[in-house]
Amino acid sequence: MDAAAADRVRAALVERLGRESVVVSPEDRRLASADASRMFTDCLAVVRPKDEGEVVALVKAAHELGFTIVPRGAGTSPTGSAAAGAGQVVVDLSRMDRILAVDARDLVAEVEPGVLCGALQARCEEAGLFYPPDPASSRVSTLGGNVATGAGGLRAVKYGVTRDYVLGVRAVLGDGSILDVGGRALKSVVGYDLVRLMVGSEGTLGIFTKLTLKLLPKPESAETLVADFAAVDGAYRGADAVLAAGVLPRALEAMDGEVAAIVADYLGEAADPTLGSRLLVEVDGDREAAARDADRALAALKAAGATNARRAADPAEREKLWRGRRSISPAVYRASPAKKSEDLGVPRSKLGEAVAAIKAAGRAEGVRVIAYGHAGDANLHVNFLYDPAQSGAKERVARTIDRAMDVVLAAGGTISGEHGVGLKKLAAARREISPAALAIMRGVKNLFDPRGVLNPGKAVPAEEDLCAS
Amino acid sequence: MDAAAADRVRAALVERLGRESVVVSPEDRRLASADASRMFTDCLAVVRPKDEGEVVALVKAAHELGFTIVPRGAGTSPTGSAAAGAGQVVVDLSRMDRILAVDARDLVAEVEPGVLCGALQARCEEAGLFYPPDPASSRVSTLGGNVATGAGGLRAVKYGVTRDYVLGVRAVLGDGSILDVGGRALKSVVGYDLVRLMVGSEGTLGIFTKLTLKLLPKPESAETLVADFAAVDGAYRGADAVLAAGVLPRALEAMDGEVAAIVADYLGEAADPTLGSRLLVEVDGDREAAARDADRALAALKAAGATNARRAADPAEREKLWRGRRSISPAVYRASPAKKSEDLGVPRSKLGEAVAAIKAAGRAEGVRVIAYGHAGDANLHVNFLYDPAQSGAKERVARTIDRAMDVVLAAGGTISGEHGVGLKKLAAARREISPAALAIMRGVKNLFDPRGVLNPGKAVPAEEDLCAS
Repeated sequence: MDAAAADRVRAALVERLGRESVVVSPEDRRLASADASRMFTDCLAVVRPKDEGEVVALVKAAHELGFTIVPRGAGTSPTGSAAAGAGQVVVDLSRMDRILAVDARDLVAEVEPGVLCGALQARCEEAGLFYPPDPASSRVSTLGGNVATGAGGLRAVKYGVTRDYVLGVRAVLGDGSILDVGGRALKSVVGYDLVRLMVGSEGTLGIFTKLTLKLLPKPESAETLVADFAAVDGAYRGADAVLAAGVLPRALEAMDGEVAAIVADYLGEAADPTLGSRLLVEVDGDREAAARDADRALAALKAAGATNARRAADPAEREKLWRGRRSISPAVYRASPAKKSEDLGVPRSKLGEAVAAIKAAGRAEGVRVIAYGHAGDANLHVNFLYDPAQSGAKERVARTIDRAMDVVLAAGGTISGEHGVGLKKLAAARREISPAALAIMRGVKNLFDPRGVLNPGKAVPAEEDLCAS
Repeated sequence: MDAAAADRVRAALVERLGRESVVVSPEDRRLASADASRMFTDCLAVVRPKDEGEVVALVKAAHELGFTIVPRGAGTSPTGSAAAGAGQVVVDLSRMDRILAVDARDLVAEVEPGVLCGALQARCEEAGLFYPPDPASSRVSTLGGNVATGAGGLRAVKYGVTRDYVLGVRAVLGDGSILDVGGRALKSVVGYDLVRLMVGSEGTLGIFTKLTLKLLPKPESAETLVADFAAVDGAYRGADAVLAAGVLPRALEAMDGEVAAIVADYLGEAADPTLGSRLLVEVDGDREAAARDADRALAALKAAGATNARRAADPAEREKLWRGRRSISPAVYRASPAKKSEDLGVPRSKLGEAVAAIKAAGRAEGVRVIAYGHAGDANLHVNFLYDPAQSGAKERVARTIDRAMDVVLAAGGTISGEHGVGLKKLAAARREISPAALAIMRGVKNLFDPRGVLNPGKAVPAEEDLCAS
């Protein structure tokens, strides 16, 4: 599309949707094109719809004016799910941010897609209710984005992932029609499960306009424990020990000692140079149950060789521990000139050996590899740190990541536990998804979006990958 | 297909699959054609494959010999999901009944589809593990059937339904190819969620050959409470009160006083003629937590007006209470010359008024309506009792059920919470599923089974319903 054509599309969008909902300045277009993947070029325009009607109008305009659409929540995707480029219009759903209902009797919430996850969590807790999914980005990421990527997070061990809390989805499909599936009934098995098919579809099947989410009664109490280990795989063995003791914590978060040191530096705290790995454990229930599970978990951690296992003394220390966990991603960004991050999952029993094999591959290539994440779910964020100014560094990282994928797939694991495929993992996804499954997925895409206007090229590898990661 | 052609198909099947795996006697064909829906005619033949290779051979034979296939677990479907007819071959998966793995470290089980749900539950509990889904039929129904119908059951309040425990599915598709999706990784978001798409697809998308299921550590203890109420909606208010007290029980099962009387009669016990409704509550956790939740629930039940609320004194009484619950379905079969059963779900807050409206509709038509089921999930089994010998009885029941569907759909509910659509609910499903969703579902079917050999006419209404219920 040449500059004159782009100007004509922008003018047509303003005419159809109004100045309030269409943003065309170069700065805004640049910002809205980028997500945490850093893969983007400037998009054509940004539409910030105030309601579903404007989303429908946008999709119809895409057909008539010849552009494609990139749905966007808060742009926290590390895989490029929300990354936009030339010829694309970003639909930024942040204005559709109303919490429509938090219903204690039905145990459901109804929200627009732009509501922040943390905002719903807070509203629920005020009402004595609980929205369990808790991506590390919950304070800044939207529920629409969480559902679109099938977000996991910190509480999945006990409570499951976002997918398990989506009861209903209302969305605008690729032809501008509305699909409204599921609702406030807590169980339903009528026809195929289109609700779950939309979860994790990364904006390629529809643009959400309303989500119905399942809630639980709020647990009375939670306790956070921290355990340090001299061995780098000590935290994984600690997680095993807690589960083997019959305790089902809501969180079991591991980090390498190196990661703890990076976070300590970022937060201006002292690091422990002898630390091999650290495990955070959070248990919940009524006050006594949480306390007793904490005792049991502590005993199990000590028996598993923790050098320092203790419970957070008060809410301030608890908050501090979780702030440390949530700071890992920004801290690592600051600690290295560049990083690649992978979001790997393996069967639980394979966690320690898989991480060790990936680190060995990094050593062989001279690439620093650090790991942290959800030990309870065996879903780790493995980061590959490098300096792009060094000759050959990118190639060495690429080879190390390729080897990491070998390790994970040979272990029966997954190339993405919770971040999705986006653009960055298309090549890896092609290794995981069988040709038979891929053919069905492409057929599904065609059912929801036959003309390919919704986030084309993301989530499901095409005949040719757009990007080889 | 005439008799000679049918004989030729049977002979060809025996030739391809061997005498051990092909059953053609009229008695066996009659038995294998029927499920709990009582909707069937005699099928052409029954294949009892010993392995996946025989399932593939069967599907290829279907194409070459011109028959369609009805997958069958234990045949407990009340909707006709497993009902077969002339020109169809039943694939009875009961010989593929190996538990391939119960892995405490990975927290997964791998099973063939013919394993009984109760057999896996028992094996897990021996290993200190827990497979939470617990359909009332668990002692006789298969895991393949549970997954195929997206079975719910008694523990869904706290633990969710079968869908939430399916990590991986291996299946033979309609063209005889193998689809193998998901696996032992506890979280994965790579491509569209074909695992969940297979769950609840009622054998119309593929024939399962292996299932990977998620397990939890076994809760240390469970306590069962029973509460009686004078009012017929007392049990629903009791369930509300337990949840509002912040207790999340694993089961909250309500039954009308009439249902309790039918069960008492069936079990040879004395019935309480003053009973309006009864609620069973089961809480779990460690010993102390279960005991304390039981105390809290009891207090809440008493405050909600329970006339008699108490905990089961010992395992024998607990077992007796649950035997009563599991006996409802057979007891009602014996108590009435005929019944129709619907499996309705509504938003939790609408439960009492929906049941009252359906009972009023029954009174207006002279149809006896009784209700029981999962009050915590607002998913009730509403039974319409009648005597088919009475003139007009069937028509009066049909009108009452039609009115019940009006009530449920107007309340934002579902015409099936956990039994699925099968054949019996195709007409009702057409009222719940929007035309847009229906078009996508038909497209999905076509992707998995383009020539329509797998359980045709079930689960998703066709252009014309095969059966109007």
